Amino acid sequence: MTKKTLGIIGGVGPLATMLIGEMIVRLTEAEKDQDHVDMIITNNPHIPDRTAFILGKSDKDPVPVILSDAERLRVAGAEILAIPCNTAHSFFGQIKEGTDLTVIDMIGETAARAARDGAKRIGILGTTGTIITGVYQTACERYGMTAVVPDEHIQSVVMSLIYDDVKAGKPADREKWSIIKAAMDEAGCDKVILGCTELSVVNQELALGAECIDSLLVLAETAIERCGHTLKG
Amino acid sequence: MTKKTLGIIGGVGPLATMLIGEMIVRLTEAEKDQDHVDMIITNNPHIPDRTAFILGKSDKDPVPVILSDAERLRVAGAEILAIPCNTAHSFFGQIKEGTDLTVIDMIGETAARAARDGAKRIGILGTTGTIITGVYQTACERYGMTAVVPDEHIQSVVMSLIYDDVKAGKPADREKWSIIKAAMDEAGCDKVILGCTELSVVNQELALGAECIDSLLVLAETAIERCGHTLKG
Repeated sequence: MTKKTLGIIGGVGPLATMLIGEMIVRLTEAEKDQDHVDMIITNNPHIPDRTAFILGKSDKDPVPVILSDAERLRVAGAEILAIPCNTAHSFFGQIKEGTDLTVIDMIGETAARAARDGAKRIGILGTTGTIITGVYQTACERYGMTAVVPDEHIQSVVMSLIYDDVKAGKPADREKWSIIKAAMDEAGCDKVILGCTELSVVNQELALGAECIDSLLVLAETAIERCGHTLKG
Repeated sequence: MTKKTLGIIGGVGPLATMLIGEMIVRLTEAEKDQDHVDMIITNNPHIPDRTAFILGKSDKDPVPVILSDAERLRVAGAEILAIPCNTAHSFFGQIKEGTDLTVIDMIGETAARAARDGAKRIGILGTTGTIITGVYQTACERYGMTAVVPDEHIQSVVMSLIYDDVKAGKPADREKWSIIKAAMDEAGCDKVILGCTELSVVNQELALGAECIDSLLVLAETAIERCGHTLKG
């Protein structure tokens, strides 16, 4: 299979961007530098906050900036795009329409993975933006799973872990994770989707359990395969 | 100070590329996504091996590929370039001549840091390509330090750590590091430059001692400041 060049629209958030780059390097079957995936990554801090726009707290639409980054990446040689931000996938239709490149559907791929892993009652953890637009609930229900979202209090703990810890450059607070985990267990979830890439950073720092389906890891694995490379055995 | 966009010519090696990206994100004073350094990173697996070319084992010159990546980054908006590969700095003059962008001199910055840290007798660890071209020895001697390079046997252990472990995607072997460290101690070095970005990956994995001056960390810190951002206090 011909190798393709991957473009990553990053900066949303910045740490998750570097983490998916590292995941792709570590998970590609490679013996030397020259065996790796050809990648171009933007880490654009000017992409407006996705959740703030969805909630109407800001009128700064992130889509035009995302599409302008898609174009920068296309000009620089990218053939397939990955966007390591679940909330940005709330605008997936518009993004797909606005670029000629193939864009990997992180939400659809993660839901498919959850179904393959045998999930029946699946917890959805993400920003309030992602939860409100219902992208994960819809994708999971398409596979016959029952999607469970946190109540208002637990959702505020999820947002605090994302914004006050990871996005603010602080270590993830295990106590916050324990509160979230207990609530999802109590709600009867057999699996939980880490549907925000900052939660993937938490997963890297705290090594969350096997019941977690990490959307960033799914995106990394999908990107390696779509670019014609093999996953490390 | 106006913020500038950083271009990183990566892929040399791929893991070190993602590591410097992570270092830059973690070391920038930032409270939210929008506070971070604007970056564009290439991870081009087609850059020929630098050491093989320097040693005459290959006639594939890496400079034209590096310059073509510099141009891709310039077109995509980069204003300052960082190349997280010490061996590539053997061609620093040619690279600087071949692009209109400012290129950060990783070797010069690292030698300056060693001098500021009070090093007198400094060990140089790097690929055989970097050692043979003498770029670090020259830069360190300019600051009045005495540069010490490993003997042939120890150099082969350094190369094995770089190529058989890190570049081959395997964990760094602490035993190899202990052999290198003992030899540098015996040679009377008060500080040691990790003058290969794969050794920075080893430093991240094994947490080498405070006597090590990590060239990738120096490049990350220099890049943050040159782009008009502040280092985290």
